[in-house]
Amino acid sequence: MRRDAIADTAARFAEVRARSVALCAPLAPEDHVVQPVVDVSPPKWHLAHTTWFFEAMLLTHAAPGYTAFHPAYGYLFNSYYEGEGERWPRAQRGQLSRPTVAEVLAYRAHVDAAVNAWLATEPPAHWLERLELGLQHEQQHQELLLTDIKYILGHNPLRPAYSTDDTAAVTVTAEHAPQATALQWIDHPGGVASIGHAGDGFAFDNEGARHDVLLAPFAIADRLVSNAEYIAFIEAGGYRQASHWHADGWDWLRQNAVAAPLYWFRGEDGAWWHQTLAGPQPLPPHAPVTHISWFEASAYADWAGARLPTEFEWEAAAARGMAWGQRWEWTASAYAPYPGFHRAEGSVGEYNGKFMVSQQVLRGASFATPPGHQRLTYRNFFQPPLRWQYTGIRLVKP
Amino acid sequence: MRRDAIADTAARFAEVRARSVALCAPLAPEDHVVQPVVDVSPPKWHLAHTTWFFEAMLLTHAAPGYTAFHPAYGYLFNSYYEGEGERWPRAQRGQLSRPTVAEVLAYRAHVDAAVNAWLATEPPAHWLERLELGLQHEQQHQELLLTDIKYILGHNPLRPAYSTDDTAAVTVTAEHAPQATALQWIDHPGGVASIGHAGDGFAFDNEGARHDVLLAPFAIADRLVSNAEYIAFIEAGGYRQASHWHADGWDWLRQNAVAAPLYWFRGEDGAWWHQTLAGPQPLPPHAPVTHISWFEASAYADWAGARLPTEFEWEAAAARGMAWGQRWEWTASAYAPYPGFHRAEGSVGEYNGKFMVSQQVLRGASFATPPGHQRLTYRNFFQPPLRWQYTGIRLVKP
Amino acid sequence: MRRDAIADTAARFAEVRARSVALCAPLAPEDHVVQPVVDVSPPKWHLAHTTWFFEAMLLTHAAPGYTAFHPAYGYLFNSYYEGEGERWPRAQRGQLSRPTVAEVLAYRAHVDAAVNAWLATEPPAHWLERLELGLQHEQQHQELLLTDIKYILGHNPLRPAYSTDDTAAVTVTAEHAPQATALQWIDHPGGVASIGHAGDGFAFDNEGARHDVLLAPFAIADRLVSNAEYIAFIEAGGYRQASHWHADGWDWLRQNAVAAPLYWFRGEDGAWWHQTLAGPQPLPPHAPVTHISWFEASAYADWAGARLPTEFEWEAAAARGMAWGQRWEWTASAYAPYPGFHRAEGSVGEYNGKFMVSQQVLRGASFATPPGHQRLTYRNFFQPPLRWQYTGIRLVKP
Amino acid sequence: MRRDAIADTAARFAEVRARSVALCAPLAPEDHVVQPVVDVSPPKWHLAHTTWFFEAMLLTHAAPGYTAFHPAYGYLFNSYYEGEGERWPRAQRGQLSRPTVAEVLAYRAHVDAAVNAWLATEPPAHWLERLELGLQHEQQHQELLLTDIKYILGHNPLRPAYSTDDTAAVTVTAEHAPQATALQWIDHPGGVASIGHAGDGFAFDNEGARHDVLLAPFAIADRLVSNAEYIAFIEAGGYRQASHWHADGWDWLRQNAVAAPLYWFRGEDGAWWHQTLAGPQPLPPHAPVTHISWFEASAYADWAGARLPTEFEWEAAAARGMAWGQRWEWTASAYAPYPGFHRAEGSVGEYNGKFMVSQQVLRGASFATPPGHQRLTYRNFFQPPLRWQYTGIRLVKP
Ligand SMILES: [Fe+3]
Ligand SMILES: [Fe+3]
Ligand SMILES: [Fe+3]
Ligand SMILES: [Fe+3]
Repeated sequence: MRRDAIADTAARFAEVRARSVALCAPLAPEDHVVQPVVDVSPPKWHLAHTTWFFEAMLLTHAAPGYTAFHPAYGYLFNSYYEGEGERWPRAQRGQLSRPTVAEVLAYRAHVDAAVNAWLATEPPAHWLERLELGLQHEQQHQELLLTDIKYILGHNPLRPAYSTDDTAAVTVTAEHAPQATALQWIDHPGGVASIGHAGDGFAFDNEGARHDVLLAPFAIADRLVSNAEYIAFIEAGGYRQASHWHADGWDWLRQNAVAAPLYWFRGEDGAWWHQTLAGPQPLPPHAPVTHISWFEASAYADWAGARLPTEFEWEAAAARGMAWGQRWEWTASAYAPYPGFHRAEGSVGEYNGKFMVSQQVLRGASFATPPGHQRLTYRNFFQPPLRWQYTGIRLVKP
Repeated sequence: MRRDAIADTAARFAEVRARSVALCAPLAPEDHVVQPVVDVSPPKWHLAHTTWFFEAMLLTHAAPGYTAFHPAYGYLFNSYYEGEGERWPRAQRGQLSRPTVAEVLAYRAHVDAAVNAWLATEPPAHWLERLELGLQHEQQHQELLLTDIKYILGHNPLRPAYSTDDTAAVTVTAEHAPQATALQWIDHPGGVASIGHAGDGFAFDNEGARHDVLLAPFAIADRLVSNAEYIAFIEAGGYRQASHWHADGWDWLRQNAVAAPLYWFRGEDGAWWHQTLAGPQPLPPHAPVTHISWFEASAYADWAGARLPTEFEWEAAAARGMAWGQRWEWTASAYAPYPGFHRAEGSVGEYNGKFMVSQQVLRGASFATPPGHQRLTYRNFFQPPLRWQYTGIRLVKP
Repeated sequence: MRRDAIADTAARFAEVRARSVALCAPLAPEDHVVQPVVDVSPPKWHLAHTTWFFEAMLLTHAAPGYTAFHPAYGYLFNSYYEGEGERWPRAQRGQLSRPTVAEVLAYRAHVDAAVNAWLATEPPAHWLERLELGLQHEQQHQELLLTDIKYILGHNPLRPAYSTDDTAAVTVTAEHAPQATALQWIDHPGGVASIGHAGDGFAFDNEGARHDVLLAPFAIADRLVSNAEYIAFIEAGGYRQASHWHADGWDWLRQNAVAAPLYWFRGEDGAWWHQTLAGPQPLPPHAPVTHISWFEASAYADWAGARLPTEFEWEAAAARGMAWGQRWEWTASAYAPYPGFHRAEGSVGEYNGKFMVSQQVLRGASFATPPGHQRLTYRNFFQPPLRWQYTGIRLVKP
Repeated sequence: MRRDAIADTAARFAEVRARSVALCAPLAPEDHVVQPVVDVSPPKWHLAHTTWFFEAMLLTHAAPGYTAFHPAYGYLFNSYYEGEGERWPRAQRGQLSRPTVAEVLAYRAHVDAAVNAWLATEPPAHWLERLELGLQHEQQHQELLLTDIKYILGHNPLRPAYSTDDTAAVTVTAEHAPQATALQWIDHPGGVASIGHAGDGFAFDNEGARHDVLLAPFAIADRLVSNAEYIAFIEAGGYRQASHWHADGWDWLRQNAVAAPLYWFRGEDGAWWHQTLAGPQPLPPHAPVTHISWFEASAYADWAGARLPTEFEWEAAAARGMAWGQRWEWTASAYAPYPGFHRAEGSVGEYNGKFMVSQQVLRGASFATPPGHQRLTYRNFFQPPLRWQYTGIRLVKP
C-alpha cells in the first residue's frame, strides 16, 4: 500500500475515533455510567468496547509485540464474541462505575497510538480491511451511542436535553425535520431484481452474495408515515383493536401498556409532546413518526389498508431513486442469510450471522447514522418490540 | 348440495370427531388434566376446545336457535381468538379440574348432535366450508393431543407408556420407523418455481396465494438426519461449540442445560435411550432424529457443512417427488405471509395470520399427523426453541 | 404394651386413615390432580404423602423386612425432608397425572396392612410414639386437604360446591357459623404466665419446653372480628390507606390488587358474597371473617385502634377460659423456638424447627381442624401473605 | 432555647452534614451513580435523600416561606414514605444519571443554608427534636453509604480500593481489627430484666417503651466468632449439611450458590482472601467474621452447639458490661414492637414501625457506625438473607 493511502487511512481513523468522543462531549461523567434497560448500554461502555474491538480483532493478531492495555478489559468490554472468552453479563453493564470515563479515554489514547504506530509499518491489505471493519463497527456504535444517550436522558424524570443546539457531531435540529405532506405512490413493475452488495467498497458480510429475486408488481410510498398520520391511527383506536396486531404484538402492548410511540407524552396543553435531543417539544405533525416497534409499524400498515415492504421491494425501489435516510424503515422481511452467505473464520464470524433468527430487517439509515455510513444494501436488524432506534414506517400496496 | 354429499360430510364429521376421543382412550381421567409446561395443554382441554370451535365459529352463526351448551365454556375453551371475547389464561389450563372428562364428553355429544341436525337442513356451501375448517382444526389438535399426551407421560418420573401396542387411532410401532441408511443428494436446477396451494381442495389461508419464486440451483437430501448421525454431532462436542449456534440458541442451550434431543436419556447400560409412546426404549440408530428445536436443527446443519432448506426449496423438491411425511422438517424460512395473503373477516381471520412473526416454518408432516391431513403446500410453524412436536432435519447443499 | 392398648391404637389408626379418604369422597378423580398455586397441593398428593410418612419414618426403620411399595414414591412424596434424599419439586406437584387416585389408594392399603401387621408384633413404646406422630401429621394434612380442595374448587370459574350437605368427614354447615354479636373485653392482670406444653399427652416439639413469660396487663376480645366489622373496614377505605399497613403488606396488596378477603366477590345484587364449601353464598354478617392474611389482620387491628395478641397473651387468656376454635388466630408473635427447644435426631427433626423464621404464629384451631386435634398450646405458623387457611382476627387492647 | 444551645446544634448539624460528604471524598463521580443490587443505593442518592429528609420532614413544616429546591426532588429522593406521595421506584435508583453529583451538592448547600437560617430564629424544642431525628437519620445513612460504597467497589471486577489509608471520615485500618483469641463465657443468672430506652437522650421510637422481660439463666460469649472459627465451619462442610440450616436458608444457599461470606474469595495462593475497603487482602484469622446472613449466623451457631442470643439476652448482658461495637450482631429475635409502641403522627410515623415483620433484630454497632451513634438499646433490623452490612455472630449457651 502506498504512503498516501496509509495517510488517508490514518486520517479516516482519527476522524471516526474523534467523533465517538465528540458525541459524548455534552454529557456529564454520570451520564456515561447508567443502563436503564438492557438494550441501552452506558456511553462509556461504547467508548471502551469500540476500542477493545481494535485491540482484540486487530492489534493482538497483527501488531507484533502489542500487549493489552489492561488484562481485565477484554472481560469487561467483549460484547458477545464467544470466541473471545468469558465476558461481563450484558444486563449488568450499568453496575460498573470503573473504569471511569477518564480511564476509558486513556484506554482509547493507548489503542489509538498503537494503531497509528502499526499503520506506519505499512501493513498488508487484509489487515487494513480489518481496520476498516473496526471503523464501520465504531460508526454503528456511534448511532447506538446517540440513541442510548437519548434514552438515558429521555427517561430521566428531569427530562434534560442532550443539546439545544447543533454540535460538531450531531445536527440536533434535523432530528424531526418535516417531510412533504403530499404522498405519491411509486409504481414498480416487478420482475427479476438483483439484491445485495457488489463491487469493491466496504459492505458487511450479511449484504452478500448479490443474487436475483423475483418480485410481483407493487406500489411504494415516496415518503414515510408522518406523526399526524400516526395520530389518526391512535385516535381511531388503533391501540385498542386487536385485529390490526400480531398476537405477540398484542401481548406486548398489553403487558407494557403501550398506547403511543416511545418518548411521546401529553403536555399540560393536552396535546402530544415528545422528548427530543433538545428536550421536550410539541410534536411536529409533518415529521416522520419514529420510535415505533415493528409491531406498531405492522399494525399501522394494516389499519391503513397497506403493508410493509419486503427488504427486496425496498432495495429495488431505492435502486431506482426512491429517497430514504431519515428513519430506519421496518420491513416485512425476517433477518436471514442471503443465498451463499458464509460465516468468516474466527471471532469476526460472529459479527452478523449468529443473529439471523427472530429479528426483522430494517432498511435505509437514520438521522443518527454517521455521515458516510449509509448504504443502499445495508441490512439493519432488531427484535420486533424494540423502539429506541430511529425507526420509521413506509407503506406498500397492494 | 346433494343428499349424498351431505351424507359424506356427516360421515367425515363422525369419523374425525371419533378419532379425537379414540386418541384419549388409553388415558386415565387424571391424565386429561395436567399442563406440565405452557405449550402442552390438558387433553380434556383439546377435547373441549375443538368442540367449542364448531360452536363459536359455526353453530352460533349458522344454526338458527342454537344455544351454547354452557355459558362459561366459551370463556374456558377459547384458545386465542380476541374476537370471541375474554378467555381463561393459557398458562393456567392445568389449574382446572372441572369440567371433568365426563362433562367434556357430554359437551361433545351435545355439539355433535347439533351439527348433525344442522347438516340435515342441507346448509349452504360456504357454511359447509366452515365445517370443513372445523374438521381440519380438529385434526391439527389431534396431532397436538398426541404430542401433549407424550409430554405428560414422558415427563412423569414413572415413565408410563401411552400404549405398548398399536391402537385404532395410533400406530405406535411407526413412531420411530427406520429410514434407509444410505443418503442420496437430489439435485434441483433452480429457476422459477410456483409455490403455494391452487385448486379446489381444502387449504389453510396461509398456503396462498400461489406465486412464483426464483431459486438458485441446490442439492437436497433424500432422507432425514438419523439418530446415529445426530449422536456423531453430540460426540463431536456439537453442544459445546458456540460457533455452530445462533446467539439465541446458545443462550437457550445454556439456560436450559440442553445436551441432547428431548426425551433422550442415558440408560443404565450407558447407551442412549429415549422415551417413546410405548415407554422407554433403546434409541434406534436409523430412525430419523426428532424432538429437536430449530436451534439444534440449524446447529447440526452447520456442523455437517450444510444448511436447512428454505420452504420454497423444500416445496419445489417435494413437488418433484422427494419423499416426506415422517417428521415435520424445520426450514430456514421465517413464517411470513405469501404475496397477496389476506386475513378473512371475523374471528377466523385470527386463525393463522396473526402468528406471522418470530416463528419458523416447518414443512411436510409427521408420524402423528392424522391420515388425510398431509399436504404438499402445508405450512406448519413454531418458535425456534420448541421441541415437543415430531420435528426433524433435512439437509441442503451448498 | 398391653393388647388392649394395641387394639386402641389400631382403631385410632384406622379411624384417622379412613377420614383422609372420606374427605376426598365428594371429589372427581380430576379434582385430585391440580395445584392452582404452589401452596395448594393436589389431594392425591396429600393422600400419598401422609402414607409415605409412615413408610419413611416408621416402617422402614421399625418393621423388619418391610420394603417400600414403589421405589419412586419416596422421590415423589417426600415433602421437604432433606434427610430423606432428593424429591420432586414442590411447585410441580400438579404436573403429575400418575400415580392415579386408584394407585394411591392401593399404596394406602399396602401401608395400612403393613402397619397393622407391625402393630400385632406389640412394638416398643418409642415406635408407637412415632406412629402417633404419623397420625398427628395426617390430621394436619386433613386440614390442608380441606383448604386445598376449597381452593381448587373455589378458583374454578364454574364455582362448583364441595358438598351442599354435611358429610361424614365435614360439617359443611359449620363453615361460617355465626358468633355472638356483642363483644366483651376480657381483662388479664398480666404477671408471670407459664407457656407451652407439659404432661404426658401428645404435643409437637415446638410446643416445649414449658417456660415462664412476663406479661403486662391487657384486655382481649371474647370473640373474633366478624364479617360485618370487616366490611366496615373496607368501606372506610382500609385497603387504600397505607398508614394501617406494614410496608411488606402494602406492597403485597398493590402487587396482587387485594381489596377484600380471599373468596369474597360482589354478587349481581351488588352485595358481598363468598365462595364456600357449599358453593357461592351471600356473606353472613355475624360469622367470623376468614381467609385474611396476617397483613390484613394487622391492618384491621390498627384501623380498629387495637392490636393482635402475642401468642403468650393468647395462651394465657385461653388458659383462663377464653373460647376459641373456629378460626386460626393470627398473633403478633413471629415463629421462634421456645427456650430449651431441641431438634430431634434424624429426619423427624426437620418437622418443625427449620421453619422458625419469617413466619407468624397462629393459635387456636379452625372449623377444618380434625376432631381431637385441637390443643391449647398448639403453634400453627404461616408466612404473612397466606390466606387460604381458615384464619381469623382477635383484638387486644391496649 | 438558649443561644448557646442553638450554637451547639448548628455545630452538630454542620459536623454531621460534612461527614456524609467526606465519606464520598475518595469516590469518582461515576462511583456515585450505580446500584448493583436493589439493596445498595447510589451514593449520590444517599447524599440527596438525607437532604430531602430535612426538607420534607422539617423545613416544609417549620420554616415559614421555605420552598423546595426543585419540584421533582421529592419524587426522586423520597425513600419509602407513603405519606409524602409518589416516588421513583427503589429498584431503579441506578438508572438516573441526573441530578449530577455537583447538582446534589448544590441541593445540600441550599438546604444547609435554610436550616442554618431557621436555627437562627430559635425554633421551638419539638422542631429541634425533629432536626435531631434528621441528623440521626443521616448518621444511619452514613453507615449505609460506606457499606454501599464497599459493595459498589467490591463487586467491580477491577477490585478498586476505597482508600488504602485512614481518612478523616473512615478509619480504614479498623475494618478488620483482631479480637482476643481466647473466648470466655459470661454467665447471666436470668430473672427480670428491664429492656429498652429510658431517659432524656435521643432514641428511635422502636427502642421503647422500656419494659420488663423474664430471662432464663444463660451464658454468652465475650467476643464474636472469628474468621478462623468460621473457616472451621466451612471446612467441616457446614455449607453442605442441610441439618444446620433453616429451610429458607438452605433454599437461599442453593439458589445463590453461597459457600462463604460475602467478599471472600480464594487467592492465587489457595488461601482465603477478602475484599476490604483497602482492596483485596489475605483474610485475618482473628478478626470477627462479617458479611454473613442471619441464615449463616444461625447455621454456624447450630454447628457450634450453641445458639444466637435473643435481643433481650443481648441487652441484659451488654448492660452488665459485655463489650460490643465491632459488628452488628444478629439475634434470635424477630423485629416486633415493644409493648406500648405507638406510631407517631404523620410521615415520620413510617420511620420504623411499618417494617416490624419478617426481619431479624441486630444489636450493637459496627466499625461503620458513625462516632456517637452507638447505643445500648439500639435496634437495627434486616431481612435474614442480607449480608452487605458489617454483621457478626455472638454465641449463647445453652
Ligand atoms: Fe459492537
Ligand atoms: Fe385451536
Ligand atoms: Fe407433611
Ligand atoms: Fe432514609
